[in-house]
Amino acid sequence: MQIKVYYIKDYKEGQKFYGVYLCKVKQMLKSKNGKTYINIDVQDKTGVINGKVWDITNAIESFEELDFIQVEGMITKFQDKLQVNINRIRRAQEGEYDEAEYIPASKYNKDKMFENLIKLVNSVEEKHLKKLLEMFFVEDEEFAKKFKIHSAAKTMHHGFLSGLLQHSITVANICDYLSKLYYILDRDLLITAALLHDVGKIEELSSFPQNDYTDEGQLLGHIFIGAEKISRMTDRIEGFPEKLKTELLHCILAHHGELEFGSPKKPAIAEAMALSMADNMDAKMEGFTELYEANEPNTAWLGFQRMFESNVRQSEGTVENRKKKA
Amino acid sequence: MQIKVYYIKDYKEGQKFYGVYLCKVKQMLKSKNGKTYINIDVQDKTGVINGKVWDITNAIESFEELDFIQVEGMITKFQDKLQVNINRIRRAQEGEYDEAEYIPASKYNKDKMFENLIKLVNSVEEKHLKKLLEMFFVEDEEFAKKFKIHSAAKTMHHGFLSGLLQHSITVANICDYLSKLYYILDRDLLITAALLHDVGKIEELSSFPQNDYTDEGQLLGHIFIGAEKISRMTDRIEGFPEKLKTELLHCILAHHGELEFGSPKKPAIAEAMALSMADNMDAKMEGFTELYEANEPNTAWLGFQRMFESNVRQSEGTVENRKKKA
Amino acid sequence: MQIKVYYIKDYKEGQKFYGVYLCKVKQMLKSKNGKTYINIDVQDKTGVINGKVWDITNAIESFEELDFIQVEGMITKFQDKLQVNINRIRRAQEGEYDEAEYIPASKYNKDKMFENLIKLVNSVEEKHLKKLLEMFFVEDEEFAKKFKIHSAAKTMHHGFLSGLLQHSITVANICDYLSKLYYILDRDLLITAALLHDVGKIEELSSFPQNDYTDEGQLLGHIFIGAEKISRMTDRIEGFPEKLKTELLHCILAHHGELEFGSPKKPAIAEAMALSMADNMDAKMEGFTELYEANEPNTAWLGFQRMFESNVRQSEGTVENRKKKA
Amino acid sequence: MQIKVYYIKDYKEGQKFYGVYLCKVKQMLKSKNGKTYINIDVQDKTGVINGKVWDITNAIESFEELDFIQVEGMITKFQDKLQVNINRIRRAQEGEYDEAEYIPASKYNKDKMFENLIKLVNSVEEKHLKKLLEMFFVEDEEFAKKFKIHSAAKTMHHGFLSGLLQHSITVANICDYLSKLYYILDRDLLITAALLHDVGKIEELSSFPQNDYTDEGQLLGHIFIGAEKISRMTDRIEGFPEKLKTELLHCILAHHGELEFGSPKKPAIAEAMALSMADNMDAKMEGFTELYEANEPNTAWLGFQRMFESNVRQSEGTVENRKKKA
Amino acid sequence: MQIKVYYIKDYKEGQKFYGVYLCKVKQMLKSKNGKTYINIDVQDKTGVINGKVWDITNAIESFEELDFIQVEGMITKFQDKLQVNINRIRRAQEGEYDEAEYIPASKYNKDKMFENLIKLVNSVEEKHLKKLLEMFFVEDEEFAKKFKIHSAAKTMHHGFLSGLLQHSITVANICDYLSKLYYILDRDLLITAALLHDVGKIEELSSFPQNDYTDEGQLLGHIFIGAEKISRMTDRIEGFPEKLKTELLHCILAHHGELEFGSPKKPAIAEAMALSMADNMDAKMEGFTELYEANEPNTAWLGFQRMFESNVRQSEGTVENRKKKA
Amino acid sequence: MQIKVYYIKDYKEGQKFYGVYLCKVKQMLKSKNGKTYINIDVQDKTGVINGKVWDITNAIESFEELDFIQVEGMITKFQDKLQVNINRIRRAQEGEYDEAEYIPASKYNKDKMFENLIKLVNSVEEKHLKKLLEMFFVEDEEFAKKFKIHSAAKTMHHGFLSGLLQHSITVANICDYLSKLYYILDRDLLITAALLHDVGKIEELSSFPQNDYTDEGQLLGHIFIGAEKISRMTDRIEGFPEKLKTELLHCILAHHGELEFGSPKKPAIAEAMALSMADNMDAKMEGFTELYEANEPNTAWLGFQRMFESNVRQSEGTVENRKKKA
Repeated sequence: MQIKVYYIKDYKEGQKFYGVYLCKVKQMLKSKNGKTYINIDVQDKTGVINGKVWDITNAIESFEELDFIQVEGMITKFQDKLQVNINRIRRAQEGEYDEAEYIPASKYNKDKMFENLIKLVNSVEEKHLKKLLEMFFVEDEEFAKKFKIHSAAKTMHHGFLSGLLQHSITVANICDYLSKLYYILDRDLLITAALLHDVGKIEELSSFPQNDYTDEGQLLGHIFIGAEKISRMTDRIEGFPEKLKTELLHCILAHHGELEFGSPKKPAIAEAMALSMADNMDAKMEGFTELYEANEPNTAWLGFQRMFESNVRQSEGTVENRKKKA
Repeated sequence: MQIKVYYIKDYKEGQKFYGVYLCKVKQMLKSKNGKTYINIDVQDKTGVINGKVWDITNAIESFEELDFIQVEGMITKFQDKLQVNINRIRRAQEGEYDEAEYIPASKYNKDKMFENLIKLVNSVEEKHLKKLLEMFFVEDEEFAKKFKIHSAAKTMHHGFLSGLLQHSITVANICDYLSKLYYILDRDLLITAALLHDVGKIEELSSFPQNDYTDEGQLLGHIFIGAEKISRMTDRIEGFPEKLKTELLHCILAHHGELEFGSPKKPAIAEAMALSMADNMDAKMEGFTELYEANEPNTAWLGFQRMFESNVRQSEGTVENRKKKA
Repeated sequence: MQIKVYYIKDYKEGQKFYGVYLCKVKQMLKSKNGKTYINIDVQDKTGVINGKVWDITNAIESFEELDFIQVEGMITKFQDKLQVNINRIRRAQEGEYDEAEYIPASKYNKDKMFENLIKLVNSVEEKHLKKLLEMFFVEDEEFAKKFKIHSAAKTMHHGFLSGLLQHSITVANICDYLSKLYYILDRDLLITAALLHDVGKIEELSSFPQNDYTDEGQLLGHIFIGAEKISRMTDRIEGFPEKLKTELLHCILAHHGELEFGSPKKPAIAEAMALSMADNMDAKMEGFTELYEANEPNTAWLGFQRMFESNVRQSEGTVENRKKKA
Repeated sequence: MQIKVYYIKDYKEGQKFYGVYLCKVKQMLKSKNGKTYINIDVQDKTGVINGKVWDITNAIESFEELDFIQVEGMITKFQDKLQVNINRIRRAQEGEYDEAEYIPASKYNKDKMFENLIKLVNSVEEKHLKKLLEMFFVEDEEFAKKFKIHSAAKTMHHGFLSGLLQHSITVANICDYLSKLYYILDRDLLITAALLHDVGKIEELSSFPQNDYTDEGQLLGHIFIGAEKISRMTDRIEGFPEKLKTELLHCILAHHGELEFGSPKKPAIAEAMALSMADNMDAKMEGFTELYEANEPNTAWLGFQRMFESNVRQSEGTVENRKKKA
Repeated sequence: MQIKVYYIKDYKEGQKFYGVYLCKVKQMLKSKNGKTYINIDVQDKTGVINGKVWDITNAIESFEELDFIQVEGMITKFQDKLQVNINRIRRAQEGEYDEAEYIPASKYNKDKMFENLIKLVNSVEEKHLKKLLEMFFVEDEEFAKKFKIHSAAKTMHHGFLSGLLQHSITVANICDYLSKLYYILDRDLLITAALLHDVGKIEELSSFPQNDYTDEGQLLGHIFIGAEKISRMTDRIEGFPEKLKTELLHCILAHHGELEFGSPKKPAIAEAMALSMADNMDAKMEGFTELYEANEPNTAWLGFQRMFESNVRQSEGTVENRKKKA
Repeated sequence: MQIKVYYIKDYKEGQKFYGVYLCKVKQMLKSKNGKTYINIDVQDKTGVINGKVWDITNAIESFEELDFIQVEGMITKFQDKLQVNINRIRRAQEGEYDEAEYIPASKYNKDKMFENLIKLVNSVEEKHLKKLLEMFFVEDEEFAKKFKIHSAAKTMHHGFLSGLLQHSITVANICDYLSKLYYILDRDLLITAALLHDVGKIEELSSFPQNDYTDEGQLLGHIFIGAEKISRMTDRIEGFPEKLKTELLHCILAHHGELEFGSPKKPAIAEAMALSMADNMDAKMEGFTELYEANEPNTAWLGFQRMFESNVRQSEGTVENRKKKA
């Protein structure tokens, strides 16, 4: 007989809890009366639930944080929150689970997105820039593979599988649109800079399921890491024009727009300005999308949001759009 | 025999200066040796030239600043700049000149732009918002006429005839594009807010050729003026939903994005954020375009620009694009 | 036999708790051992006390937050704080209570304050301004009634019944005094602006007992709401001088003094500056008064206060003044 | 025959220039053709006029900047400004002029103002504070004499004879008014602090006609100088309560309200806050008065004013008040 | 039989707790079941431990916060933290303990540091400055005694016994080094200012074990207190040059470097700048040292630190240095 | 007969002007009466003087800005400033002049400074860091040669020949001193970072005599350029520890201390903080030294200095030190 495996967000009080989940947090604690118990948080891509192992018996195998574990227990409620009383845990084997089920992921198909990225690469006419993009996304398969699934942030925004890919393409698309509106913009330079602007994030953030700042990331930052990576790559392309390289690196260095946001240079050419604004636009709009989707579709106030420095909420139209889509 | 009338930017030293021009500045001055002379700046849409009337004879009719005047004189050079020695001035009659020739204007055709605006109006589905836009742009012909030619700024950016129309449409187009990228956005609300966000500028700035802040503009600002105008208009539309009105007014009030830029509220819904970012994007990109076009197409540094808080210059690609276009 | 009804601040441990109170907070919670209980906060104008309903019997009628409820129970102490063990609750009927007893109120008599306001109105000589004030405070009885009791804030400062009236009059009095010191000030304009500067708060904040930001308040703010209201009212007065209207609206828009405090314009005439400073002065002095009165009369430090960006305390003289007054 | 002596503001082109004036600036310059001439600015309390000595003959006595000089010449006009061609200069003797005629002065009578100050001193009830005020203003006659005529600023605001006295009294009067409105305020402490808050200016600024920062003033500032002076004086009063002294010194140290304005402490008691706001109020209102009076009574814009961080102008009412008063 | 007295940091679960400790916190609390118990924190120079007195018997003598108490109990563990179940407390007598054992102290010997200070005093050549230093550190024995043990801060940095002495000497040493690098610096002035720059802290902070801001400290601050103290002392030295006094006081007033850090003047001479930078350098480096030493010697991230406005950690080299030293 | 060649600062009015100078500015101008003349600024290391060529004859050879030219003329005075009337110019040949005589230079011997640098290199114990320093300063002779003479700034501070060397050594010396005071500091890492922190300036600024920002310098900045250069160099050293490399690069990236000063990361380890403070200390102290030396040795105020955000002056002691040294 097959036991029903639910997504975490779908469990109700009183149900049996069963399935493979990712252990995000694990602590040995002592209760008031001195008994040791295990406190864990398990997650899948739909949410997180807290669990307690009150009896540490043979049924509880050894495991660590970030392991995938097969868990059995009962759903209870404590202070209005669901909780699992766990009586069985074992480590899951590779093959028993699909990692993508346990960590938040882009709602867009990563292969389709990558196809779109390759189309953008092919649309670049200047041969050195095109070659540069191909060296990253076509010739360096290991890099391309990482880029396809990497997150673009620890938390908000784009803090999910393929978040970096989704963000890079959207920024490049906005830049493509801008280059139609403003003839002064060098489309090839702008598209190249847009697709590469966050490549440093691959080293700034560790891979899922951990998805946290690396030491190198904290000490050097993705702006420097990315610019250096691109600088070295251009040196491997014969005849890469020196001025073009400098302009491209400037776009990468200036893409946070302001010194106080970590860019060591302010945008000094129109392409750098366009990139920094497109980057910010996608950040803010995706930020709103994630915040809205984490809440019910209604116009209730969502409290002060540091990202927007304001109390925010959904418009009537947003509510309708979300309902239509659901 | 017809005397050749040049645009101001095309005169050379030694030529006869002849034609109708707009008098932008007029001063009575005294030379070192005590003689009174008239110092004037005359302009057409291509530039400004300084002139001196050394002999105030009958050939010099009475005229005022901002009059259109028929001028005759000779082009000379003083300290590397061209100058006109004027010997004849008379006021021009209406009909002798086309005002548009004397003041900077959008490079886009205002009728075509307005057609595009009407298409955007027609694309709005929510009936109250559509009615509101029609009341402004279709039913109020006097308003529409003004909106078609008004400037959007005293100087940079969009400080030219039909600058307000060009800016409003471009912002609305960017918003249209964003509403395709981010499904949460209420396109009808966003397009409406985009087309109306700067309507207060019609009262904040006087018409060309003066194009300066009005008293009302300085004391109240286009944000309040525009929001109040829209608020009153909605009240004339039966059944205009109260919440929708509030959201629309919020978008207008918040479109500068930050309190310190004169918005009394920060964006609190995604549409208000999208509008403020699209507005800023067009301001910055048009700012670059105007700055670049005021300079030769090369990569020389253009000095510290307050608008961008940086020394800026044109990229190699911008230079090429400008040359191709010329 | 009549049971003694105390003010909340006067109850002592061990007394019977009895009377009608306002239910400010109501929650259904579960105890550690799984039993459901009701947690409530009840308030009168002298304070707030927490209560628990451990046994949900027939004696506990259904009620909601912000209902007035008749409560019976016993005062106990838990972790040094008084608490009520409640055994009986019923909804109170209109007529059983005087709303003013349950919500904080100005210590000044609202009718006397309003009389003073009318005197100030009558002291205005310019006929259009006087008419404007009369339309608000005399002819629009519904508005006047609301204005008399409305709060001026959600919390500190003037966050109580008739707080708006008290604040408006005090600001107007300070302005009156300033117009004697500085002859340049237009007293009529200044008094009018002072009395009307916060009229937008009537829509920005909901009425007591809720007294919270409305949606319109959060999205538009009392500055815009008030300025628009005044603008429309002036249009109903024949011959209201256009310049005077603009100056008055400017005073309203600029009354927060700085863009970063939500004014879309900085004060540009002396009257606007005087109003913004008088407004700030009453805010800060009332803020100190409320803070001091919420603490014992002594010179102990009161901790860092965000309103004053400092750790503050009472001077020796303040302590004496409070003791004399008590 | 008596030659008519005009105030500088009353001279017209073509008149003879004659009288004793204060030499504010004196420079030896060379003309284009190599001739040495003297360039001077002379002032009286109504204004400043530039003069040239083209022929340095015996009729031109030796003199220095800040000397009072008897000048003869002719009024001419150069580039729309009046100028004096000087042919005779001699140093004026003490007794030939009344210093007060040559430097800007308070429009209020300094003796009457000082009488009012003494009344305020007498209204202080706390005996130690009263004694302190008497030691400054009654017993130390030299100090009192200086205080009566000292300026309160190098330029705007109160940068004139008796400016310090006028400012101190006005601030004290506002504080007196506030102590009626807010019972928490210790009137004795507040009035004392108000009258003494700027005593350090006597050493921060040199006396007229120089009226410039002293070395001590620039290195230490009037806040420290004044606080130290008051601290030492209290030590000479037997039984001066320690806490009262600390509160008084705190009011002096905190009277600029913000650290970035040079106060080493933010106001931490209500009296310190009241004083800093009253000080700022008089500064701003006097600043407006001086700016307005330096311009014609009309509503023309007066340009961006650093003091108010805004372009400012006079209201219609201000214009009327000034005309009535003139 | 002698019971072993451990330092707090060395106790383990299950041991007997015994010795004299400083009572830093004392509260009477009630348990869930209504029983009164005593909650205390006791400390020695190595750390703090929490204790509970569950039975308040005769064995528990009366005592207050900041008393030294002789405690007996058992070490237990609650939620992974050590705790003491106390069954006996008595007040300790003077003589039973060495205060220095109970409060954090400089790791440098205070007498040796003071010797070094005296050497620095003796190295000053300008006789008035030398005399001034001698009056503070040699002639005023009471002051010298306090200075030797006073803390320089409530918490971080130098918030320990002799912290003021250690900080003053280190700053003076850095200044000495700078005066070798930059010949423009007046070494005598700089050393004097360095040794005296924080003398106001003796009154700003109370002595250990309390080590908290005094009222005077909060209202006036150590900058004013110190500058005034020095000013008065110089007046007792015959012939102290006025300019030198002003420069010295300026160095004291400006030593926080920026107005927003509480200096009423920015550094205006090179010596004031050098002092403010040396002061800041020792603050930051000691801050790092204290933070590092409060953590294990490894390169783990230590979280966001307000003092450095960054997440910080130890370098590999720091880890090695600490291990070598240990 | 040998004509006397003076330094520019030593010429007096009426002398013959003769010698080889650097032409810093050259302009063709037209006089009021239409005659073309040449306006030039010539400089040597002691100063700059303006010259006019009124007659452009055969004696005036063709030359360009930044050429060294042999000039003959007469010293005259115009509006109190010395000026040269030039009648002969020819381009100087290499060998006729010593470049160092024409551009400001460090007052320290560059070979001795470089010896000291090598000593510092040799004092580094960690072998990879030592190797890295040797690769820059010993093995790469071309780099070392440039480093020895490069400027560290366009203007203030260290904007002279060998300014980069002088600054790098002084910063390293301060860091050496700090590593003695604070045992936590990794001396090897700190000294290495100090010596290399500004290597990017070699590409950010062009060489003397131009000494201006390069395009690469403006677009990328010396922080990125230097960090990338060091990163690549470490990759050529076998076994360079990855963590050490990251810490070193972090020190380079963070050496401006604050994001708003162009560092993309704030100091996160003690060595990075120490370096940024030592860098700032030398900048400020050298800034004072240069400012003082550009003025007479007296205590006159030197006006508001943007670098110090204050009006500054020399102390009495500075004046004495300068006199002693002169």
